[in-house]
Amino acid sequence: MTTDTTILDGLDFDAAPYAVSDEVADLLFREARTIGAFTDQPVTDEELAAVYDLLKWGPTAMNITPLRLLVVRTPEARERLAKHVNDGNRDRVLAAPVTLIVAADPRFHDHLPVLAPHRAEMAGWFEGQAETREDMARMNTLIQLGYLIVALRAAGLDAGPMAGLDLAAVDAEFLAEKGWRSQLIVNVGHRDGVGTHHARARRLDYGQVSLTV
Amino acid sequence: MTTDTTILDGLDFDAAPYAVSDEVADLLFREARTIGAFTDQPVTDEELAAVYDLLKWGPTAMNITPLRLLVVRTPEARERLAKHVNDGNRDRVLAAPVTLIVAADPRFHDHLPVLAPHRAEMAGWFEGQAETREDMARMNTLIQLGYLIVALRAAGLDAGPMAGLDLAAVDAEFLAEKGWRSQLIVNVGHRDGVGTHHARARRLDYGQVSLTV
Repeated sequence: MTTDTTILDGLDFDAAPYAVSDEVADLLFREARTIGAFTDQPVTDEELAAVYDLLKWGPTAMNITPLRLLVVRTPEARERLAKHVNDGNRDRVLAAPVTLIVAADPRFHDHLPVLAPHRAEMAGWFEGQAETREDMARMNTLIQLGYLIVALRAAGLDAGPMAGLDLAAVDAEFLAEKGWRSQLIVNVGHRDGVGTHHARARRLDYGQVSLTV
Repeated sequence: MTTDTTILDGLDFDAAPYAVSDEVADLLFREARTIGAFTDQPVTDEELAAVYDLLKWGPTAMNITPLRLLVVRTPEARERLAKHVNDGNRDRVLAAPVTLIVAADPRFHDHLPVLAPHRAEMAGWFEGQAETREDMARMNTLIQLGYLIVALRAAGLDAGPMAGLDLAAVDAEFLAEKGWRSQLIVNVGHRDGVGTHHARARRLDYGQVSLTV
């Protein structure tokens, strides 16, 4: 932080306590909502690639970046997904411009020579450690899912993450060949009005979630 | 997005494909690095509370927001943590201005009347579902860990997340009374120069991590 008041393209080093402006903090966190109702405006592949080009830079263990995306776009694919989604969520999958199946790739080690060249020799060790790979893939994909939600908002898109579905059935339906493991789905688009009929839920205070030693 | 070129306090709706300026995208994702070397500048409790006041708004299942923080600040606490950290990471824990033990609270359901008042009656059901609560707490804490990393950067802080430690020993050392489950530690401070001696690692392309159906 500097002692001067500087607002430069969204970086505001004097708006304590943040280095980004209030507008950016609102867009990414404070005013963002989980969206259930989207307009018909499409979400392009270019937009999704741009979202990935942000989230991919977030840190993961050994840079394994195991998050994978199955982009469900066509009416046929949407119906195939919807049949595995809980009743209360199904209509939203059918109505969203696009739904992302966020999955973990347990074969992340195939990419170690590119992602972690100084540890490329560990690819052979990982090959024999299927359970460790499943755990690492899931853990780091979930961390990347956090980056994904923020990156979608940074790209001007709205997100509606949903966990109520049969993940094993989704894997069998879509991911058997790749071997990816689905974790969650995220509806993506542009909000229709407020985009949700829920009142904003409360959060715990810092004092309730922290201890200092 | 609008068709006008508007740059307003860091929101740039014409800088396709992002709704934030290049400077914000760089700060939060593209130019951010995992930092190992920090200056002596302290990190205050007020700064950490402000970071939490961003990350807390990120979505979680049923709004359970199970992420908890043990803030390791004193030399004594730092030594207690360091003895459970792998050799290669220990010096960084001892040198960082502050280290966060990021943990999951399996008793998130105690807060359901506040966090999800329309589902407050589920608190009783969750009480009998310890395994489900452990899974939900861990999954959603990891997603919130992604929000935490971005929120630290949005607050002008640098982060050095590390996974190489004995989590069970950390739980016994610090978290037995609370019952929280540690997931990862994050060193926090202000980078000393570049803050890392690693070259920037490569990432996979969107085409390598996605399929469209």
